[in-house]
Amino acid sequence: MNACKLYLKKGEEQRLLEGHPWVFSNEIDHIVGFIKSGEIAYVYAIDGTFIGKGYLNTNSKIFVRILTKEDVEIDEAFFYNKILKAKQSREDIGYQNSYRAFFGESDGIPGLIVDKYGDYLSIQILSLGIDQRKPIFIKILKDIFNPKGILERSDVSVRTKEGLELFKGVIDGIVPEKILIKENELTMAVDLLNGQKTGFFLDQQDNHNAVKPYVKNKTVLDCFSNIGGFGLHAAYHGAKDVTCVDISALSVKDILYNASLNGLSQVKAIEKDVFEQLRAYQKDGVKFDTIILDPPAFAKNKEAIKRAYQGYKDINLQAMKIIEDGGYLYTCSCSHYMTIDLFLQMLQDAARDAKKKVQMVEMRIQSKDHPALLGSDESLYLKCVVLRVLNA
Amino acid sequence: MNACKLYLKKGEEQRLLEGHPWVFSNEIDHIVGFIKSGEIAYVYAIDGTFIGKGYLNTNSKIFVRILTKEDVEIDEAFFYNKILKAKQSREDIGYQNSYRAFFGESDGIPGLIVDKYGDYLSIQILSLGIDQRKPIFIKILKDIFNPKGILERSDVSVRTKEGLELFKGVIDGIVPEKILIKENELTMAVDLLNGQKTGFFLDQQDNHNAVKPYVKNKTVLDCFSNIGGFGLHAAYHGAKDVTCVDISALSVKDILYNASLNGLSQVKAIEKDVFEQLRAYQKDGVKFDTIILDPPAFAKNKEAIKRAYQGYKDINLQAMKIIEDGGYLYTCSCSHYMTIDLFLQMLQDAARDAKKKVQMVEMRIQSKDHPALLGSDESLYLKCVVLRVLNA
Repeated sequence: MNACKLYLKKGEEQRLLEGHPWVFSNEIDHIVGFIKSGEIAYVYAIDGTFIGKGYLNTNSKIFVRILTKEDVEIDEAFFYNKILKAKQSREDIGYQNSYRAFFGESDGIPGLIVDKYGDYLSIQILSLGIDQRKPIFIKILKDIFNPKGILERSDVSVRTKEGLELFKGVIDGIVPEKILIKENELTMAVDLLNGQKTGFFLDQQDNHNAVKPYVKNKTVLDCFSNIGGFGLHAAYHGAKDVTCVDISALSVKDILYNASLNGLSQVKAIEKDVFEQLRAYQKDGVKFDTIILDPPAFAKNKEAIKRAYQGYKDINLQAMKIIEDGGYLYTCSCSHYMTIDLFLQMLQDAARDAKKKVQMVEMRIQSKDHPALLGSDESLYLKCVVLRVLNA
Repeated sequence: MNACKLYLKKGEEQRLLEGHPWVFSNEIDHIVGFIKSGEIAYVYAIDGTFIGKGYLNTNSKIFVRILTKEDVEIDEAFFYNKILKAKQSREDIGYQNSYRAFFGESDGIPGLIVDKYGDYLSIQILSLGIDQRKPIFIKILKDIFNPKGILERSDVSVRTKEGLELFKGVIDGIVPEKILIKENELTMAVDLLNGQKTGFFLDQQDNHNAVKPYVKNKTVLDCFSNIGGFGLHAAYHGAKDVTCVDISALSVKDILYNASLNGLSQVKAIEKDVFEQLRAYQKDGVKFDTIILDPPAFAKNKEAIKRAYQGYKDINLQAMKIIEDGGYLYTCSCSHYMTIDLFLQMLQDAARDAKKKVQMVEMRIQSKDHPALLGSDESLYLKCVVLRVLNA
């Protein structure tokens, strides 16, 4: 049986050469040999230059996800080495208890995400090629991490684009309903099975801790708090008063529980819609020294970007209005459609309408254990900008 | 005598409303009243809406630099409050010994820069309106900072565009030839009169310290070292071996002196051209775990950007080639013409040519005491990107 050889249309190899790991189906000129979803395809430029190889999926717009640019064997040892190397790189820069241990495309295995939460692993599989080989990955992860349990959180709609069903559940060992993890110096109770993403927003770990300069002896408002990552770090770093706002009653309960776990009695949590609550504060003349905005992705696809822009602008504008003169806005967007330029343009736009003069003090991206792959826009998704807001 | 009233061409107020503080001469529709360089101009949209006021300079393309958007008195108290507030904001986020105390446009007095170096101040004046009122500013700075001496470092060519002569010298008290400052936890000997910028690259203070995760037990190469800010911080944070490269013999002497001041015996310094030295290392098969690139601004104007791009690409490409697999490139650009997008594009371009797979681990800007003014591209000038470099 001849392996699948796939020839790209003229010029379509450029993006791949610059580091992007996906071959889209509309970029293919012709295919020679045996095509079977989940098997290896060799990718060539139209002139026959070898570009790389990876698993193909005829059901996906992403026809091939490149695994290597060299003609090496794709076997258990290949995957083992990639996963071990990624783990070591996280430990090398200081991560210990909880971190993203493997970040798909960026770490060289498209579609595989592994998050380490204390003694447990939570994984997510987003491509057919990896899904078909799940037992191999479970074996490797047990070898490398020796976890007490492995949970799979493949309950994301993007899997349907690969022709995969949604799934979540324990796939090895035992995973308790709630576990305690260390996030920086704090203890957090995390519900891996029902929490956001693979259990928690690990991608904000560095940014949670980086609120430190902006909170000491301050009144802090943490919006879209989830289980309290930002608000608790603000309290830990000396905020005198922290108000967490989240629309979910469960989140409010979790925040207060986590606050008590860490002895942070200055943390309050209220069950409110952020859009409405910011307006209520304005109406009542309530102001804060520092406001944190960490909304969910308003733009989940390219088409939604215009409406999302308005949503981001609205909360940033409303927040700017209720920040004390010279106070700080710590504002995030986790949608990669909201590019850095667009995010800054939106903030400028909001500042203008709020009639504020605004200094940018810091610009940050996702935590270092979620490295963005240069050349792949999708992987640089989280922006975090710190603004000092002045009465104009 | 009627104050100068300046009416902008239709639509030209937009940029000002978004926070940019400069009125260019070609944006003016007409002027009413008395025009004198160094005096106040009131700026209006063509429909008569008041936009702001600031000092005018008929000799400069920047005809007016906006001081306020409200019709308040521009007097000593106005300046005093701005300068005090800026100082307090730096202390509030943790700066103590040495920091940029006032950052011109961003802090609301266009053309005035004040850097605090321990007990001394070094100032720079870049606009006529401020230059004419120097005695007022000396008085205010003495009141607020009580410095042992104030140095002026107005020896930058951009002053000629304002019709001002270049000047450097002590303007109050006594300033010794070399002073000792604290940069983060390190002691640095700084030559305020002859050092770079106002004496030292204070704008890299935060970034110098942020090398911490990437240097422990590593071999580190620090290129364009100046007096050793990056290299010494790498050594302080546990690098086992640090090589600083700078083309200036004086810098080499300064680096070694500063290393000895801090007891950092693992720091070497060599007097070499970085472009050549990177190639020499490659030829000799010498590799490093972590390489720092902090070049001078290759693009000092918009026209030079294409050549500058090639310069940045060259050093980044050469550096990527001699980084150990999985090692780090800590790469900076201090030219605002090199936008974030262009900088990332250049890095992608370099990675492609170096045949490396590259992860972006961090994105940083200038230190928090050099806040960028949102809406004013000029003030966001320093980018600092941390890449993990992998054999593709």
